[in-house]
Amino acid sequence: MIEAIEKNLERLINTCEEPRLREAMLYSALSPGKRVRPRLFLSACEAAKGSYDATALDFACCLEMIHVYSLIHDDLPAMDDDDLRRGRPTTHKQYDEATAILAGDALLNHAYETMSRLCADFFRLRRPVIAMAIIAKAAGVNGMIAGQMVDLQSEGKKITLDDLKGIHRRKTGALFTAALEAGAILGGGTRLFVQGMAKLGGMVGLAFQIRDDILDVTATCEQIGKMPGSDARNEKVTYVSLLGLQKAEDTYKKLSNEALALAQSLPCRTNSLRDLVMQIINREK
Amino acid sequence: MIEAIEKNLERLINTCEEPRLREAMLYSALSPGKRVRPRLFLSACEAAKGSYDATALDFACCLEMIHVYSLIHDDLPAMDDDDLRRGRPTTHKQYDEATAILAGDALLNHAYETMSRLCADFFRLRRPVIAMAIIAKAAGVNGMIAGQMVDLQSEGKKITLDDLKGIHRRKTGALFTAALEAGAILGGGTRLFVQGMAKLGGMVGLAFQIRDDILDVTATCEQIGKMPGSDARNEKVTYVSLLGLQKAEDTYKKLSNEALALAQSLPCRTNSLRDLVMQIINREK
Repeated sequence: MIEAIEKNLERLINTCEEPRLREAMLYSALSPGKRVRPRLFLSACEAAKGSYDATALDFACCLEMIHVYSLIHDDLPAMDDDDLRRGRPTTHKQYDEATAILAGDALLNHAYETMSRLCADFFRLRRPVIAMAIIAKAAGVNGMIAGQMVDLQSEGKKITLDDLKGIHRRKTGALFTAALEAGAILGGGTRLFVQGMAKLGGMVGLAFQIRDDILDVTATCEQIGKMPGSDARNEKVTYVSLLGLQKAEDTYKKLSNEALALAQSLPCRTNSLRDLVMQIINREK
Repeated sequence: MIEAIEKNLERLINTCEEPRLREAMLYSALSPGKRVRPRLFLSACEAAKGSYDATALDFACCLEMIHVYSLIHDDLPAMDDDDLRRGRPTTHKQYDEATAILAGDALLNHAYETMSRLCADFFRLRRPVIAMAIIAKAAGVNGMIAGQMVDLQSEGKKITLDDLKGIHRRKTGALFTAALEAGAILGGGTRLFVQGMAKLGGMVGLAFQIRDDILDVTATCEQIGKMPGSDARNEKVTYVSLLGLQKAEDTYKKLSNEALALAQSLPCRTNSLRDLVMQIINREK
């Protein structure tokens, strides 16, 4: 599945004719990643209808493009000022700031350009349009971007566990939820199935983010492809800084088990979603 | 029309719940502007069906949001590094760079979030989806963003008049063309009418950009709301630097007259489009 996603990402980005822009987009999007969001989307689609088609693969890649744009902008000097991402120089280090800003804008817009083209092709069907609307909302001003804004403003400040949950829910959870919800919709799932998927997405997203907080303290640079300890350097409140490492691990395990139980209880046509949730839960990087 | 656009822009942006993000979005989008793209869109819609409705007004505001995001990012220190825009401090000067990057991202995504929501509401109709797809493409990697990238790369370099036309066509012309084309489509125009509108959009966009080049040399800061002479400072090739002021003015007048003649030849139901083209052509700021 990862190979298919990466090949299709390359194909979609290659429709950009401007060489430097295309190169920076490819560099950022194809650097080694876990492709969690597109895999969640495709797994949800498979869970609903037993397989996924070319349209679903394009939609999955749009989710990854939205995710990658947010990473590029997040790494900029004015934001988190990171030099390393996925084991490589960040986009503004490899090129320059202006190119990184534009490559991010380009990936964001390209996701919507691709999805709206697909919707126009499929105009008789309601599902692709709804899938797009769900993704757009999750990526939006009350979703991922709001999470980034609140996260930035809370650096160096004292916040509660509820505040932190709110940030994580929007910054990471929103796109995870959208991946499973929109994937299940495009796969033709029933309303009840789609609701279960959305709930699962929120749980997996929060678990993923807590794991990130833990790995930032326990992992090596080689493991996670970026310098560990960046949360502490940026004075970010995390599950680990709020609860301590042991309690963060406990919370993580509890949430993981609940997510896995929910994944197993949903009437999926394939095992790919359950396997993926398991992989995400057990990840070491 | 301008008042309706600005009121609706405010309403759409106010759906953002995160205070600082919302404030920066409002500050950038509601600073005094000409609202050329949304007015072109609504005029094209009126030209096709005699009036415009709430959906068309929302679409028009999405075009303005896409335009404003491109201005915010363009003004950033890593790009054109401008301190003044529309007579006010640029967004990163008023707030900070991180907020400006996010406010731009937010406006871009909010435009698509709004359009895709409208498309989902109107799912039985093909036209809103096609209008969105046209706008997305124009704003995209082979449209406005490519124009920005090539423009950045050509600073301080020698380029030909054809190169410059190519930059202007993508950087400014693409969104102008999309405004008229998508507006005419949403208004229910025939294929021939829509084609004529798209052609008109390209001509008005190029004329608008040449006028920009001229005003950067001849206008005062008060007139254009930003420091004149910025093209020369950024070593940008313009119609004026390539052809001299007189020949640039001549080219501008010729193109303007052709655009006006085309506008008058199209079977429009209202005069608003012709009047708007006239206004754009005669603008002093």
